[in-house]
This record gives sequence, structure tokens and C-alpha cells, in this order.
Amino acid sequence: MPYVTVKMLEGRTDEQKKALVEKVTAAVSETTGASKEKVTIFIEEMSKKNYAVAGVRESDK
Amino acid sequence: MPYVTVKMLEGRTDEQKKALVEKVTAAVSETTGASKEKVTIFIEEMSKKNYAVAGVRESDK
Amino acid sequence: MPYVTVKMLEGRTDEQKKALVEKVTAAVSETTGASKEKVTIFIEEMSKKNYAVAGVRESDK
Amino acid sequence: MPYVTVKMLEGRTDEQKKALVEKVTAAVSETTGASKEKVTIFIEEMSKKNYAVAGVRESDK
Amino acid sequence: MPYVTVKMLEGRTDEQKKALVEKVTAAVSETTGASKEKVTIFIEEMSKKNYAVAGVRESDK
Amino acid sequence: MPYVTVKMLEGRTDEQKKALVEKVTAAVSETTGASKEKVTIFIEEMSKKNYAVAGVRESDK
Repeated sequence: MPYVTVKMLEGRTDEQKKALVEKVTAAVSETTGASKEKVTIFIEEMSKKNYAVAGVRESDK
Repeated sequence: MPYVTVKMLEGRTDEQKKALVEKVTAAVSETTGASKEKVTIFIEEMSKKNYAVAGVRESDK
Repeated sequence: MPYVTVKMLEGRTDEQKKALVEKVTAAVSETTGASKEKVTIFIEEMSKKNYAVAGVRESDK
Repeated sequence: MPYVTVKMLEGRTDEQKKALVEKVTAAVSETTGASKEKVTIFIEEMSKKNYAVAGVRESDK
Repeated sequence: MPYVTVKMLEGRTDEQKKALVEKVTAAVSETTGASKEKVTIFIEEMSKKNYAVAGVRESDK
Repeated sequence: MPYVTVKMLEGRTDEQKKALVEKVTAAVSETTGASKEKVTIFIEEMSKKNYAVAGVRESDK
């Protein structure tokens, strides 16, 4: 605890994802008081075909 | 806001998914009073190997 | 199947939520080909204290 | 109802997943009083690149 | 890992929830090979006003 | 996009939650390249009665 899920479009590099989990873990630990060892992160990547704002999918723009 | 997630078995066509996000966005906007621009939709597709009802996976039927 | 989750700020009336599930169920059934009986909807209501865009919670605006 | 989601690293065999849904359905039915027919299970499999504890992804260990 | 979420209508007793997490943890551990210490369970309870099948909320039946 | 969900036990102060969304938004923006305006955060708070590790709920410890 805490458990963090980051949902975003696919396409980030492996280096970006590595940095993401490091920085988000630090931010969560610092502000909640939980130790870093207790912070879990899940990355969920979406296809542009499965994400829509205002009724239009990213892949249809 | 609102954020809508539609979880379903994979296999719908691209046209079906396009229509799905259009119609669901309209339904949500009309009934909640949120403008269409504020409605976000995520489609999550499942494999039959990862979905079970009554203890039996769809792929084992 | 399908399973639909609608996440939104608390404050909608009971009538709005009733209409929401009716209209969204119809939209999902019509566009995916699933019968209405197969459509499940979950409404998740958030407090303004637990929702932030651009780093600012709705309750801090 | 109930709806159960099991999130785990990819790599389990098909036999393991088949047994998982059988046993979890039985456990949920027995303890909640819901009939087995009412229990739905979703398996979500994660890549080691998308799962981190303590700021380090499983794939970076 | 694994992480299990059980979503159900509110109203189960504390004893039922205690038994639920024990039995589900055992079932997941036995079938996935993960040790019990690695199994995390989240219970999410829904109001009848926020759950609908076939376009009708449980509270409107 | 991205959408971040932080799930944790209830009990954090309002100031902690305010700082959490600020810092996490900055961390996500910096590492993914998304502008801060595009980062959405949801906080989900759990009761100790609904969270278990190793088959034992936090409230039963």
C-alpha cells in the first residue's frame, strides 16, 4: 500500500517507463509517508483504437 | 468526467467499436448533463481464456 | 458481458442515475450486438477531494 | 455478482488458469452465499515491464 | 502478486468478509504457485443504486 | 491522458492528498512528456475491513 495504476496510450519507451515508476514511487512515498518498499505500480497501455474523448477514438482523428 | 470503461470479449469490429464510443458518449452526456467533450471512454478487450462465469472459462466451454 | 463502469463525481440525482443505466445499456446493446440482459453497469461516485486534473483537486479550485 | 478480478504476471499455464477460476469461484460462492452461476472472474495478465514494487520494474531486476 | 479484487453488493457480514479473504487467498495460492504472503485482496462494496443488469438498477427492482 | 489511480487505506489528511496529486502529476508529466493539464488523478480510499494481505484483513491484525 499504496497501489498506483497509470493508464496511458502505448508508445512510451522502456526508458520512459523505467523513469516513470521511479519518480512516481518517490512522489507517493514522500507525500503519503509510506516507505518506497510499500509502493506498487501497474502500467496499463491502451491502443488508440480503444480510447475516445468526446465520442471519437484517438485512431479516428 | 465522466470516465467510462467498457470491458468485453475481443472480436468486435473496428466499426462496432467506433459506433460504441459515439452512442455511449451521447447516452452519458444526455443523462448526466456533462458535455460530450468531457466524456472519456476506455475499451478493454478480454481473451476467452481470461473470462469465466460459474467457474468455467469461455474458452473451456 | 459487456461490463460497463461509469466513474463520475457524486451529486447526480437518483433519476439521473436511473436514466443513465437505461440509455447506456441500450447504446451498448445496439452497437455490440449483445442482448440487453447481458449488459452490466457499475456506477462509481467520487468525492471532489479525490479527483484532480492538472495537479489540482476539484475541491481545491 | 460477485465480480472477481485477478491481476498477475503473465506466464501461468492454461491449466493453472483453468484451476484458478474453478477454485476461486468455489471459495467466493461458499463464503458469500452467492450461487456459483453468479460468480464472474476476469484474469488480467501483466508484463514484467509494466509492474514495479519499490520503484523498480520486475523486468529491471 | 497476484492482486485480487472482489466487487459485490454491500451487506455481507464482517465474518463473511473475513472468511472470503482467507478462502480466496488459499485458492489463489494453491493454483498459481504464489505464496500466501504474496496474495493481496481488495473488497469493493457497491450500493444497489449503483449496480444494474439489463438496464435496471438493483434498487429499482 | 495519462490517468492515474492511487489506491490506499483511508486516513491521509487533506493536506497529504493535496500534496500527493501535485507531486504525482509532476512526476508523470516529467517522465511521459504529457503536459500537466493532461494528467488526471483518482484517489481511492479503502477501509481496513476491505484490504487483506496473506489472507488476513488489516482490521483483523
